[in-house]
Amino acid sequence: MKPANVIYMDHAATTPVSAAALAAMQPYFSTRFGNPSSLYWLGQEGRKALDEARERCARVLGCRAGEIVFTSGGTESDNSAIMGAALALKAKGDHIVTSAIEHHAVLHVCDLLETLGFTVTRVPVDRAGRVSPEAVEAAIMPRTTVVSVMLANNEIGTVQPVAEIAARVKAKAAASKRTIAVHTDAVQAPGYLDINAQRLGVDLLSLSAHKFNGPKGVGLLFIRRNTPWLPTHVGGAQERDRRAGTENVPAIVGMSVALEDAERRRAETVAHCTALRDRLISAIHERVERARLNGHPTERLANNVNFCFEGVEGEPVLLGLDLAGVAASSGSACTAGSLEPSHVLLALGMHPDMARGSLRLTLGPENTASEVDYVVEAVSGLVGKLRSMSAAPRR
Amino acid sequence: MKPANVIYMDHAATTPVSAAALAAMQPYFSTRFGNPSSLYWLGQEGRKALDEARERCARVLGCRAGEIVFTSGGTESDNSAIMGAALALKAKGDHIVTSAIEHHAVLHVCDLLETLGFTVTRVPVDRAGRVSPEAVEAAIMPRTTVVSVMLANNEIGTVQPVAEIAARVKAKAAASKRTIAVHTDAVQAPGYLDINAQRLGVDLLSLSAHKFNGPKGVGLLFIRRNTPWLPTHVGGAQERDRRAGTENVPAIVGMSVALEDAERRRAETVAHCTALRDRLISAIHERVERARLNGHPTERLANNVNFCFEGVEGEPVLLGLDLAGVAASSGSACTAGSLEPSHVLLALGMHPDMARGSLRLTLGPENTASEVDYVVEAVSGLVGKLRSMSAAPRR
Repeated sequence: MKPANVIYMDHAATTPVSAAALAAMQPYFSTRFGNPSSLYWLGQEGRKALDEARERCARVLGCRAGEIVFTSGGTESDNSAIMGAALALKAKGDHIVTSAIEHHAVLHVCDLLETLGFTVTRVPVDRAGRVSPEAVEAAIMPRTTVVSVMLANNEIGTVQPVAEIAARVKAKAAASKRTIAVHTDAVQAPGYLDINAQRLGVDLLSLSAHKFNGPKGVGLLFIRRNTPWLPTHVGGAQERDRRAGTENVPAIVGMSVALEDAERRRAETVAHCTALRDRLISAIHERVERARLNGHPTERLANNVNFCFEGVEGEPVLLGLDLAGVAASSGSACTAGSLEPSHVLLALGMHPDMARGSLRLTLGPENTASEVDYVVEAVSGLVGKLRSMSAAPRR
Repeated sequence: MKPANVIYMDHAATTPVSAAALAAMQPYFSTRFGNPSSLYWLGQEGRKALDEARERCARVLGCRAGEIVFTSGGTESDNSAIMGAALALKAKGDHIVTSAIEHHAVLHVCDLLETLGFTVTRVPVDRAGRVSPEAVEAAIMPRTTVVSVMLANNEIGTVQPVAEIAARVKAKAAASKRTIAVHTDAVQAPGYLDINAQRLGVDLLSLSAHKFNGPKGVGLLFIRRNTPWLPTHVGGAQERDRRAGTENVPAIVGMSVALEDAERRRAETVAHCTALRDRLISAIHERVERARLNGHPTERLANNVNFCFEGVEGEPVLLGLDLAGVAASSGSACTAGSLEPSHVLLALGMHPDMARGSLRLTLGPENTASEVDYVVEAVSGLVGKLRSMSAAPRR
């Protein structure tokens, strides 16, 4: 049962489909349902909707429509970006460079490639979660073919210097006359950061619609023209032979509308969320002792707050917040329920006990200052209570 | 612009989302939008919806809920079934057996595995498109690990003896104390054929929701318990570590409702479509000279009609039908627009010229006898006209 007054502060996990995106999707479920590969009118209606959606996404990314491939979401985009480039460049090399705090969709496909004979360097990050462009450049070896560094981290919100990393990698590749494909997982970025593919200078970029008020089960992969890349989702000739399977027309249309909205409202969203974020961070520091902010103090997503409270486990805090009508998370939703400490927090050099106890609050445009104040009150009360309980003598 | 009176006879390409499925999906877009991996109430609403959907699908397949993995559609299910089993059994062997008329989602992943060092036997079919269980059994070699034969062909509707094939493969594997995973692409089957996994005796079975009035962008893969299988879509721990990525809750809910409906109405649908199919076939044979039915005369899907008309290309017939308000196809939607003759028709031993000119009409529950009569009239008129045009002296 949903509480009467609920406060949703888990926008990094997922977001509701916006009214505009949902309205745009509706005609394509049961009326304009044709298969876009079909030649008759009903198929061509779907084809036209796909083309328009692709143009809409391309405008936001500052790329050609033909450089966008629609996928089933962020995981597929990340998997196929890295697998596709690694396989396409197999004759030239077998080494991949990534960071230690990537999403599992990146790290696990690297693990999979290791089982196929590739080698992977996971560049460490500093205590704020930043990867240094120099360190990425230094990790490049003669057999490096793919570099993947996320635009912003999903747990701690740290923003990476992707444009600088891409420029250094490209310069190094050019100097030795070879190709290194640069990928960025930009799943957390839309609505908060610039995702213009030219300015970022990347060859591959992943997005997932449900993180920016589009539907679940759809995402996109930007593939810069002439990037060596092989499809791994194979069958029909859809998406110009780059991604087989009947196109998910309603979801793609919904994503394109949501992406356009996220970009149009970005300055406003960033201003709104930054103010709330900073209010939340200051108030927690003020009200809760031994609270430690995880991630970078300034180079972080406008909507991300991530704290550890010394001596307090994350799970009872989340449970207490849930009972108080607040939706929050301990790290990424994808590993919720896992007893393993977060690989991201461990990479910051945190002790495993501390890394088990983080609280992530990710804001959105509809959150308010009074919600923030309520959450601060709730967190402060819960942490105090949990600490006094664990301090009390056990019988 | 959609003509006022349209006749949809391309149900093998895609189908509209049913009112019941769409209604079941709606709450999960913007209201119950929580990430099912989240621990709070909103996530658990999604989790509960997923669990119920899985139970619903399991009842239709006659399997355990834990044996179902939700995917992004038929292509992903086919790809990951074969890739997953082949990689899991890599230490035991590297040979795959399939048929010559599988969907490209099966054939192309076999091609991809060949580039990774596997070998593939594509068992031929007879002139009616049937693969013989003896031929499949004979193709098994000491290093065979995966067999994949579709339940019903998407172009010509021929139904394969999958239960007998599975029994023979399993017996042969058991005799030599090894494991051979048996997969069937059952994408065209729901609502028309029995898809009970126990009765079929397969280890892996693929479905795609939009073929049975569920939404696009979602499907499922049945993986029998203890089947050696490795995930290839990797990242988060969703689907018990078998398929990473935030679950597409609304689409999964919609699919489960549509699958249950398809199975409940199966006897009725089969009776209705068989009558229309046979009326359509007889009338075309009666009205159109040199018309040849492709596929098996009796062992075919209740809703599939596929003809070649000697001396007539498929494309102008489709164009004429489109103008007459009839949605039909020349083969599979996935290869529409391709100038290559169908690999399925070529495998039947057809001359490439003839194989370029097929017309596929796939019926559905809402088609009527008067629609069939109208289509017969239209086809007969178009074929006659096209033949007289090509017979006329050119100036």
